[in-house]
Amino acid sequence: MMKFITGGVTAVPGFMASGVHCGIRKNTSKLDLALIMADKDCAAAAVYTTNKVKAAPIWLTMENLKNNRARGIIANSGNANACAPGGVEAAKKTLDAIAAETGLSPEDFIVNSTGVIGQPLPVDAIVAAIPNLVKSLTTDGMPVAEAIMTTDTFSKQAAISFTLGDKQVALGGIAKGSGMIHPNMATMFAFLTTDCDIAPDLLQEALSASVDLTYNCISVDGDTSTNDMTAILASGTAGNPAITKKGGDYEIFVQALNALNLKLAKDIARDGEGATKLITCSVVGASTHENALGIAKSVIASSLVKAAMFGSDANWGRVLCAMGYSGADFDPSHVDVAFSSPAGMIPVCKKSEGLPFDENLAKEILSQEEVAIEITLFEGDSKAKAYGCDLTYDYVKINGDYRS
Amino acid sequence: MMKFITGGVTAVPGFMASGVHCGIRKNTSKLDLALIMADKDCAAAAVYTTNKVKAAPIWLTMENLKNNRARGIIANSGNANACAPGGVEAAKKTLDAIAAETGLSPEDFIVNSTGVIGQPLPVDAIVAAIPNLVKSLTTDGMPVAEAIMTTDTFSKQAAISFTLGDKQVALGGIAKGSGMIHPNMATMFAFLTTDCDIAPDLLQEALSASVDLTYNCISVDGDTSTNDMTAILASGTAGNPAITKKGGDYEIFVQALNALNLKLAKDIARDGEGATKLITCSVVGASTHENALGIAKSVIASSLVKAAMFGSDANWGRVLCAMGYSGADFDPSHVDVAFSSPAGMIPVCKKSEGLPFDENLAKEILSQEEVAIEITLFEGDSKAKAYGCDLTYDYVKINGDYRS
Repeated sequence: MMKFITGGVTAVPGFMASGVHCGIRKNTSKLDLALIMADKDCAAAAVYTTNKVKAAPIWLTMENLKNNRARGIIANSGNANACAPGGVEAAKKTLDAIAAETGLSPEDFIVNSTGVIGQPLPVDAIVAAIPNLVKSLTTDGMPVAEAIMTTDTFSKQAAISFTLGDKQVALGGIAKGSGMIHPNMATMFAFLTTDCDIAPDLLQEALSASVDLTYNCISVDGDTSTNDMTAILASGTAGNPAITKKGGDYEIFVQALNALNLKLAKDIARDGEGATKLITCSVVGASTHENALGIAKSVIASSLVKAAMFGSDANWGRVLCAMGYSGADFDPSHVDVAFSSPAGMIPVCKKSEGLPFDENLAKEILSQEEVAIEITLFEGDSKAKAYGCDLTYDYVKINGDYRS
Repeated sequence: MMKFITGGVTAVPGFMASGVHCGIRKNTSKLDLALIMADKDCAAAAVYTTNKVKAAPIWLTMENLKNNRARGIIANSGNANACAPGGVEAAKKTLDAIAAETGLSPEDFIVNSTGVIGQPLPVDAIVAAIPNLVKSLTTDGMPVAEAIMTTDTFSKQAAISFTLGDKQVALGGIAKGSGMIHPNMATMFAFLTTDCDIAPDLLQEALSASVDLTYNCISVDGDTSTNDMTAILASGTAGNPAITKKGGDYEIFVQALNALNLKLAKDIARDGEGATKLITCSVVGASTHENALGIAKSVIASSLVKAAMFGSDANWGRVLCAMGYSGADFDPSHVDVAFSSPAGMIPVCKKSEGLPFDENLAKEILSQEEVAIEITLFEGDSKAKAYGCDLTYDYVKINGDYRS
């Protein structure tokens, strides 16, 4: 039994969270400091940005998670604490303050920031707000989900309940999009909680694999930020038989983790800056999963495909073109392409040659809020999906505006 | 002695060219069929798109150039003859018709197309226009330069005169941009002519190396088309001592070729779809040329950097971010960044940390039509430059519009 339930990180028993306005963001109605706390020490795992330029808090979190344990996650929006003077010191001050306020150790926390790059983190504002942040801890999942938002237009949270043995296990998460805050660079976060009892090494392995299948399959603008992070805390209080090896319960946990992360990832893609629609590129019949995924990602990331989707233009030539430069191995003379959405499905290309099709129907299909590009190859059984959004005037507007 | 001279492909003695309207494009004032002819058999070389999905004429040209000889180049705009039924037959018909009209063989010609993908080439219109195309051959370089344009807003031609021994040698070229025709995919062409006497294998080697330094260093939208081609015809009539080995005269030829290709490449970048400015990213002090070039290309291709440049926003954090995911090897904690243009130069980042700077001056500098992002590393003597344009509302407009 596995089902989505309401809430996010606090849908998991034993976790509370809070979000407050500490003053990094000028708009006082905008929450900008977030905290997630477990009521006991947790197994912890994280996946970090592959960008060579990493923000200061990323380095500290890597250090803190060397023992694969953590108790809480603290993060701010409005400032990325990246490429800024005194960044490590500022992140350390944040950790010291939350440790002092909670009676824990700085090493018990995951820390991260999102927002403008290159400007000193106003850490005094964070430190001053921490007592209130801790006092505000609640089982309401909304404030923490809102406090990590930057240019996101809606908060992103999801939770799943599933069964291991005869025990109910919960898994919850919040995420923020790969957009930019107005007016500067932000990042993608996903913070997850679970009461599943699972060995830290398996937790890390499951998370890493899941990130590859979900967050690493979305593309908003092709840029990879300095602060990207997915982290999970597992309290182990569900009482399930501890997961210490693969197979069986581990696979069920992985399935739940993938479902949760996919939901959050698609919400991130859907809420890409300026986006008007969610685009899925599905590839089937590829010789290998790697080839399928390479093709799907290349299509989803193509500015030309994204602009055509904005215009609801069934421009499948751009799809073939993006496939061709993907680096993936496939026979370019045997490609079928169709577009689909809740409004229907229309084949537009067979064996790499255009089919006559009803332009009005194509436009109707592509005008929906969720659109799929369906690519069929004839080389094997491998398949993959990637997720993205259209490229719109508003993307340019949001990212062309001045930083202040 | 090396100097730019007026004209393009016909600035080279012994070459004529023409451009006519054959009817592929609906607008009768738009030329859509182009021909370049040498008055004798030429050494020929070409570099093709690396896209796995290649247009039909590319395959025929590859075949025709196996003997490294050609006499002319025929190309149309308005239709890419890619992923369309009967593409090879249509390109063959074009070759047969131009051969019959000129009394030459189909194998004597380079053929290519640019425009919409996936629709049958209206080859009968081309065949019908070929007598007039041949009759229209002239030493005026404009018609041929215009006939290969798609969404280009200006025609691109350049020519250079240089000395080998006591002989004047000329090198000319035309190019079209990596934009899209309204409303569909087009491609990048560069067609070059020279009267230099040079062995075909050295001609090919010089062209391949030059493309890497010029056309492969520009990025408009990161998409690589099905029809990209750079081709050169060398008649050998200049009377220079034949270039049959490297060093000496070969290096002078290479220098001229690079200068010509760089001029055309920068014009392509400057005329990127919707572009308002030419952006150069210059990297110095890198450990290797490969690292320098990888960084420069990654920065130039970043949607976020391009959008910031459109907004004249000195958002150097995005520059560091794009460097960080470039895959290049460098120390991310020792990067200097400055912006420059004819209006001045302003350092904005030193050792990867932000410098205070005058925002008004930065905006003034970035508001110019030619802007440079100057990156300094401290790891060696290698350097590279890449060229691109800003990302604008008009890019989205041009590429989001319907195909018809």
